[in-house]
Order: sequence, then structure tokens, then C-alpha cells
Amino acid sequence: MRKKAISASVIKRLPRYYRFLGDLSLKGIERISSGNLARRMGVTASQIRQDLNCFGGFGQQGYGYNIEQLRLAIGDILGFSNAKKTILIGAGNLGRALAAHMDFAGKGYQLIGVFDKKPSLIGQVVSDLPIRDIAGLDEFCRENRPEMAILCIPREETQETARTLVSLGIRGFWNFTHYDLSVEFPDVAVENVHLGDSLMTLSYHLSHPKDTK
Amino acid sequence: MRKKAISASVIKRLPRYYRFLGDLSLKGIERISSGNLARRMGVTASQIRQDLNCFGGFGQQGYGYNIEQLRLAIGDILGFSNAKKTILIGAGNLGRALAAHMDFAGKGYQLIGVFDKKPSLIGQVVSDLPIRDIAGLDEFCRENRPEMAILCIPREETQETARTLVSLGIRGFWNFTHYDLSVEFPDVAVENVHLGDSLMTLSYHLSHPKDTK
Repeated sequence: MRKKAISASVIKRLPRYYRFLGDLSLKGIERISSGNLARRMGVTASQIRQDLNCFGGFGQQGYGYNIEQLRLAIGDILGFSNAKKTILIGAGNLGRALAAHMDFAGKGYQLIGVFDKKPSLIGQVVSDLPIRDIAGLDEFCRENRPEMAILCIPREETQETARTLVSLGIRGFWNFTHYDLSVEFPDVAVENVHLGDSLMTLSYHLSHPKDTK
Repeated sequence: MRKKAISASVIKRLPRYYRFLGDLSLKGIERISSGNLARRMGVTASQIRQDLNCFGGFGQQGYGYNIEQLRLAIGDILGFSNAKKTILIGAGNLGRALAAHMDFAGKGYQLIGVFDKKPSLIGQVVSDLPIRDIAGLDEFCRENRPEMAILCIPREETQETARTLVSLGIRGFWNFTHYDLSVEFPDVAVENVHLGDSLMTLSYHLSHPKDTK
């Protein structure tokens, strides 16, 4: 399917295309023109055509895009066909909420283990999984070989935990801590979710209404 | 303090500066050179100098930056001195976790109300606030005049809820739904947190290790 390397900026936009196409598909719409899709997404038709041409063959002059075909192709490129084994480190409020709230299976992941060090949490069940003692992390990883770890732990514990996890085979982090992993682990895939940064940016825009957008 | 309009890309980077400066300050460090700060942040010294020169007067040749002064100045620009009244709409797993987990006061917000429509949630206490019936939203907003709303509601309820909130004076959304608010409300400040998009992007990088970074 892929003909050439896809630029980082296109990759960043793929999830949004995937979401919009999924919504259209749910509404029973089978095809859409780039102009119509552009209006709904608030972007230009030419950007859509440029982005989606990377995957070839889905847009036809006078026909538009076959929505479900295009959605599946994007899901394929995003790697959803391979369910990556995932563990959650830190089952506090945020960790538990993510485990309960997120559709991991629909995005190429399988959540297989939840860990914390707090005795009062161990044994509780989150999203059908028991919260395990972090002391058993090594053994669990050697047996089950997870590839991705969600980090919902305090900042000061992140560096050491990340080192352990990388040594145990973790190749990617969904990082909710404020510790910058990418400097130390350039070969590991990291997606940082800096909720605090997002709140701060919003504060700026609320405080400077004329600068907004 | 501000001498000229700050570009959107600098604004996006301010929260990260604020975080790093806060960490240094906690460690008791009083000043730092742009080169040293650049190494810690994984950026170039010249970008730091360019970015921070927007605020004038904090860097001196041979001295570096006064960390606490610079941090306070950035906090000021980010609007932290004005505690913006905030309400949370949707007290499910994610909403409750955010209310419990986030340091709103440290980022220029005051969480004053939590709303849901689910009878079993109403009356429960989250972050010292009772969960209120969404039916009382109008009255609450007219009395208390919140400026910002955190949206943790299902996508299909977002459009109508957002319209109501804007009519009640809300000027900014911290949006966890997958509904695109910016198309309909161009004058309202919106920060979208698309947790699913972030998971999808990570899936791509895990599936294409050579493309990572």
C-alpha cells in the first residue's frame, strides 16, 4: 500500500482523518468529495487531496473518496491490525480513568496488565484487569512481552521506571508524566500528553482574547 | 512587560519553559545560561534566546537567566494571576480524574462547579465540590459567571451543550470530546485534548520503527 515515506506532518493528521471518516461511515455515507470533507474538517480541499494521495487510488475524479475503504487503509497504515500488548503503570485517578475510558482495541492495542505500588490499590479490578504489585513487573514482562507502556506515575519516579521498562522490551510510551523521555531514549516511540501544558495554553488565550487563533 | 505580539509557536512553547523553570527553581537553582537550559530541554540555545527575548530583560551576557523572575514573568503572560472560574461538564471516569488530578489553581483557574446528568453521580463529591444536576446549569452560570468549561461528555451531546455554554458566557473550552468546536465557535478559545489521536499516532510509530522521530 505505502509507496513512499510519509511526512511527519501527514502522520500527525492521519488520526483526525480516521475519526472523521469513521463518523461519516457510521452515518451510512459511502463516498465523499475532497471539497465536502474539507468543509467538514475546516481544512482546504487541496490539503486533503495532497495528504490522501500518499496512499494512492482512493480518490477518483467525479466520484470522490470511498469512505470505508479509505478509513481501513488509514487504519492499516496506523498499525491497527497488529494489537500491541500494553501495560499501564500507575493506577491512580488518571490511570484508572484511562483504562476505563479508552478504546484500546479500536486503536491497535491490547491492555494486558495494570501496575501500582500502593497496597490499597493492588487487587482492585480496572477494566477487567486486576491491579498488580509493581514488584512483579519484571516477571510479568518477561512472560507476556508487552511493547507499550502507559505512564501515569509521579514525575520523580519516571526516569527509573522508564529505564526498567526499556530494558524489559518496551518500545513505546504513552507518557502522562511531565518527565521528558525523548532526550534519554531517542529510539523509543514517545507520545507525551501534557495536560498541564494544554491548560496553560488555554489560559493564555483566555487572557489575551485578541491573540486567539 | 510585553513589547510586541507573541507568535503562536512561541506561545505553544511557553508552558514547557514554565515547567522546566519551575523544576529548576524547586532544586534551588537561581540562574541558568541559555546553553545549559537548552541542553536540559533538548532544544538549541539560540531558540531559547529568541523565544525568551520576547519578554525582555531577563537574560544577561555572562549571567544567564534569573530563573524565578523569568518563571513569574512567563506565568504572568500565561494569565495565571487571574483565576478564571471554571466548570466541569461530565463527571464520568475521565472528568472525575481530571478534577482530582489537575492543579487548576497553579495554572490560572478556579474550579467552581461540576455537572452531570446521571442521577447516580449527582450529590457525590469530587475535589471538594458536589456533582450538580446539569438541569441547574443555567442558574449556576448566571449566578457565578464561569468563563471556562471542561467538556468530558459524549460527542453527540457536545454541540448543544457548547451552544448553551457560550450563550451563558463561557469564553473557553478544554475539550476532551471528539467534537470539533473551533469550526462553529471561531471566537471562543478551545484547547482540544484528543487522547485517541495521540494513541493512534503512537501506534503508527510503533508499527513503523524506522520512521520514528
